[in-house]
Parts: sequence; structure tokens; C-alpha cells
Amino acid sequence: MKLLNKTIESIDGLDLKSMRLARERQDQLTKPKGSLGVLEELSIKLAGIQGKPLPEISRKIIIVMAGDHGVADEGVSAFPQEVTPQMVANFAAGGAGINVLARHAGAEVRIVDMGVACIIDIPGVIDKKIRPGTANMAVGPAMTRDQAVACIEAGIEVAEEAIADGADLLGTGDMGIANTTASSAILTVFSGAGLEHSVGRGTGIGADALDKKREVIRQAIKVNQPDKRDSLDVLAKVGGLEIGGLAGVILGAAANRVPVIIDGFISSAAALIAASLCPESRSYMIASHVSVEPGHKLMLDELALKPMLFMNMRLGEGTGAALASSLVEASCKVLAEMATFAEAGVAEKEEDKTEQGAGI
Amino acid sequence: MKLLNKTIESIDGLDLKSMRLARERQDQLTKPKGSLGVLEELSIKLAGIQGKPLPEISRKIIIVMAGDHGVADEGVSAFPQEVTPQMVANFAAGGAGINVLARHAGAEVRIVDMGVACIIDIPGVIDKKIRPGTANMAVGPAMTRDQAVACIEAGIEVAEEAIADGADLLGTGDMGIANTTASSAILTVFSGAGLEHSVGRGTGIGADALDKKREVIRQAIKVNQPDKRDSLDVLAKVGGLEIGGLAGVILGAAANRVPVIIDGFISSAAALIAASLCPESRSYMIASHVSVEPGHKLMLDELALKPMLFMNMRLGEGTGAALASSLVEASCKVLAEMATFAEAGVAEKEEDKTEQGAGI
Repeated sequence: MKLLNKTIESIDGLDLKSMRLARERQDQLTKPKGSLGVLEELSIKLAGIQGKPLPEISRKIIIVMAGDHGVADEGVSAFPQEVTPQMVANFAAGGAGINVLARHAGAEVRIVDMGVACIIDIPGVIDKKIRPGTANMAVGPAMTRDQAVACIEAGIEVAEEAIADGADLLGTGDMGIANTTASSAILTVFSGAGLEHSVGRGTGIGADALDKKREVIRQAIKVNQPDKRDSLDVLAKVGGLEIGGLAGVILGAAANRVPVIIDGFISSAAALIAASLCPESRSYMIASHVSVEPGHKLMLDELALKPMLFMNMRLGEGTGAALASSLVEASCKVLAEMATFAEAGVAEKEEDKTEQGAGI
Repeated sequence: MKLLNKTIESIDGLDLKSMRLARERQDQLTKPKGSLGVLEELSIKLAGIQGKPLPEISRKIIIVMAGDHGVADEGVSAFPQEVTPQMVANFAAGGAGINVLARHAGAEVRIVDMGVACIIDIPGVIDKKIRPGTANMAVGPAMTRDQAVACIEAGIEVAEEAIADGADLLGTGDMGIANTTASSAILTVFSGAGLEHSVGRGTGIGADALDKKREVIRQAIKVNQPDKRDSLDVLAKVGGLEIGGLAGVILGAAANRVPVIIDGFISSAAALIAASLCPESRSYMIASHVSVEPGHKLMLDELALKPMLFMNMRLGEGTGAALASSLVEASCKVLAEMATFAEAGVAEKEEDKTEQGAGI
């Protein structure tokens, strides 16, 4: 609890002076003001995060956390639980979607075993196993409160190691059969959304299994009565080990003034936990894509984050974060490398020259 | 007219066999079927375009075409016309938004003078000037029908040179003060959309200037009576030199089975011309982003293209195409580099193993 409290206490607001200087420079670059939209806003947010008028990204690390879910016993997923360790091995061998997209973006992938149900003995996989899978939340809490704290603190440690190794942009990613069930439960508890909106098909279940999944989540909430004002209670009762770990990664990034890209549905559930523990941590989050999973948009709305990519993706693993990492990097380059009106000898907009009004 | 006709005649449909093989491979990769969404669809489209089950992108070229517009005399833009050649110089010097974003994506930029109003004598700028700016469409046709053909054919030549130099992915980009006015006019003619939907603020005009811009377009259409069934008539009467050039780039790409990324509002106006001349050319187009310019979504709907990026951008120059080029490349890498279920020893979804039904 000590590391978690210390981390939350050290999360500070953005550096407004750096943001103002970045905005001033954006407005002098050879383009109509605001015409690069989100790229401009991102560069300004990064200036505020890094506390530098010219933010830079030099090392990107995507942290992919794996964990199993006892609720898989209820038949809520289209895939068997053995797929979790198999995919961890696939990540380590470089053959998964996240490996391809991270390589393409020039990002490193770190794989963390937060709680795969079986023993994982694969070189390169970081061992932070809190327990071998959660308990079945349909019959009782997924984990103890102490274990919820332990996963978050493990995530903070992983983030801080990555940052110590030079990472100045983190991304989140997940693997865990049945983890859309836990994520939907978290969303339902925090937002009060109806299960018809917060629960989707995950890896691709049919209509009957979807009904069953909703019923299981209804049951889990009824049995456990998670308290939405107590984030650790929510995580412990209906969360997941990798979800807690990713919440820790987000808090660890924020405490160290490092931006963190939120991937899809599971990562956004982790972001809801992080934001609930420390609202200011939202300032360090960057949304990537909006998932096919219908609850994802609701999560992003809860977090007041806007996605950049509409790619109909629903794989997780950090694949959306990897794609978005290149856009984040681009935003820094726009700010640093574009010529100003004065440098390029380009005429400005008439009203901007005369500094008239707040304008459009 | 000979080159244009020959080009249109040589535009063929996609290679369905390569698409089927690409789809089959996508379905064997270690992810739930369809879970990489647009990345999967793109890779399959590229297979059909290139006629190869494993499409590859090795050289990306963004073609930025510049031209002036006589209608700028009506005060429809927030910037003076002198900005067109100034920005061409900025492109050549590497200081503009497109230069930064193309460098980031590993793409080359080719700059083409299709009809800047003044003499451009800048090393590295391809001279295809058809005339020094269009005539003011509010009082008569922007150009002659022969000139409309000449710009398209010049665009075909530029595309074919880029392809001869090894480009296997083209992107479009534009520069031209007042060219959102011409593009809105083209959209209005083709779609029949009301001016309140098809005309926006361009580089950032105020409310009064927006009213004026709509009135100018209404006037241009009334005076010229462009015939929507005759694409060359539309281009000649209310189009632009860079817009015709970009239509040629698109047709040239399609005739050579090279995918072409459509940038924003102006590039999409060019795509409307290309699609109207040859509907099959749509199969070779890839949408990038959706612009702040309100008519852009209408254009993409007309073209039946779906954008990937929602970045609130409205700069043009090919900036959206540059960002999207990295996503297109990623789609090929996913198809080529991800491990299959068999290779990785990952269990498949139960129903897929038994090949049951059409599923979900």
C-alpha cells in the first residue's frame, strides 16, 4: 500500500507554462491555426506532461500484461483458457499482432505475467504473478484486497523499470481469456450503464453466449456488491490481475510525468481504476482507438478521452496503442520540425497579423 | 484525350483470387477472426490491387499538387493568393506539415506545379503548369475542356513516373488558396447536397465570409451549369488545376494497379472526378482521415470509402495521407509477419476448428 500511496501522492498537474509555449509555437507554424487538430493538441499535452515546450519521444515501450480469469469457467469466452499462456509464448516469440505492430512503430514490447493460471517459464517474460488466475467472480471476489494492491504496485514497478530504461512513452496492452467479462463488470459498476450497453461479444461469442455473459456479470455484481467509491474494492471483486497491473502502469507513468497510451477495452477498464484512484492521472493518458466492443466508447466517455483511430479493431494486446504511438511521435515532430511563418517567408492570415479578437 | 482514354480503359477489377488467399491467411493468424478490423480489410484490398496474396509496400510517394484559383478574387479564403507559391517553396525546403509527416512515415514527397498563378522556379518542383491559375468560376468556366483533359493527363504522367521509380503506394496532397471553394462546388454538383452541408470554413474564414463563399458557389453553378454526367465539364467549369491533376494521379495509380491514399477535402474532390470518369478506380482508393471540413464526410460517403483517422485535421497537403500510409504498411506486415495458429501452437476457437456454419 505504501508504494501505491506514494505514487498517487506524487502525481501532479500538467506544466501550464510549457503548454502555453507549445501553443504559441504551434500558432506560428506554417499552417492555418489549429489545422493539424489532434496532432497540435497532443503536442501541447505532451509539453505539459514532460514539462518541456518542445516535447520529445525517443523510446517507446508497450507493456503487455497477461492474467487468467476464474470466470472463464462460466463459458463467457469463445476461446479456452489454455490460449492465455499460448499467446504469452507467441508474444515472447514475436509472432503476435502486437509484435508486428510494435516493430512497425519502432516500439519495444515487454510481456508481464500478472497471473496466468499455469506456470510460465519463458525467457523474456517478466514474472509478477500475484496468483494463478483470479477466482470466479460469479461466486465470490476475484481476488483479495491485498492482492488488488499487489497487482497495482507490480504495475507501478514495471512502469518505473521501463522509465528507468529510458522509456518516454508507454503503451498498455492485455491478454487474458475472459477479460472482457471483468472489464465489462468494471465499466458497469463505475458508470451504471445497462448490461446491454456495457457487455459485448469479446473475441466473438454468439448470441446465446452473450446472454449468458450478461447474466454472469449481473450475478457477479449481485454476489460481490462492489463499492464504486472504493476502486480497490471494485478491482478486487470484479477485476483482473492484468487489469490491476495496467492500472499500476498508468499510475506509475503519471507519477513520473510520462505519457501513457491506453489501448482498447481492457486497458480502458484499467484506466477507469487508475482514474478512480487518482483523477489527475487522466492528464497523462492518451486514447488510441475505439474498439468494436460496444462498451469501449462508454469507457472513453467516462475518461473524457477522444480516440484517434477508428479501425474496427478488438484484439487488445496493445495493438491500438502501438498504432497510436506513431501518431504521438508525429505530433512532437510537427511541433519541433515545421517551419514558422517567419522562417519560411509565408504570409499569415490577415486577422492574425493584426492580433484581432479571439476569432474563430 | 488519348492518354486519358487509354488509362481509363486499362483500369481493371481487383484480383479476387489473391484476395481470397489473403483472407484465408488472415483467418489462420493468431487472433480472433476479424479482430484487426480495417487492418485485415486493407491487407486483402491490397492483395487484390497488387494481384499478390502477400502484398508489399516498399516505396511510398506522396504527390502534392499546387494550383491557384481565380475565384480567390471573390474573397472566399482567409489567406492571400501569394501563399500558394510561398507554401510551394516551403514544401521544397522541407518545412511544411507534409514534409514532417512524410519523413516520419518514411515517404517521399513530390511537388507539382499544376497552375500556380506566378512563375515558380524552384529546384525539385515538377513543372506541369497548365495555366497560371484558373479563371474566376463565379463569372465563367474555371478552365477550358481541353485544359481539364490536360491536367488529368499531367497527373497520370506524374503518377506513372513515380511508379516507374518504384512507388508501390501513392498518396495525394494539395495546395491552392481558395481550393476548398472549387472542391465544395464539385461536391455540390455531384451529390446535390445543399450548400449549408457542402461548404465550410476552409483555412478558417468567419461567418460572413462563409455566407459569401456559399453565394459565390451558388453563382458559379448558376453561371456555368456544369453537367454532373460529364466529369470533364464539371472539372472545367468549377474545378481546379491541382484537382484535375490529382484525379489523374488516382487514375494513373489505378491503371497501374497501385493503391492510392486519398487525403482530405480537395483530394476527395479529385477522387469524385476520377470515380465519375471511371467507377472502378474506387477499388484502388484508400481513405485516410475525415476532415473538419463538413463536406468531406459527404464526399467519402459518395465514394463509399471509410476513413481510419479522426484527428480534426483540415490542412490538406497530403498530411492525412502521410499518416495513413503507415497504417497501410502496417496492414501488409500483419498479413506477412504474424504467426498462424499452427505455427504458434495456439488453440483455435472451438467452432472454427470444426468449421461450423457462417457463425456470428
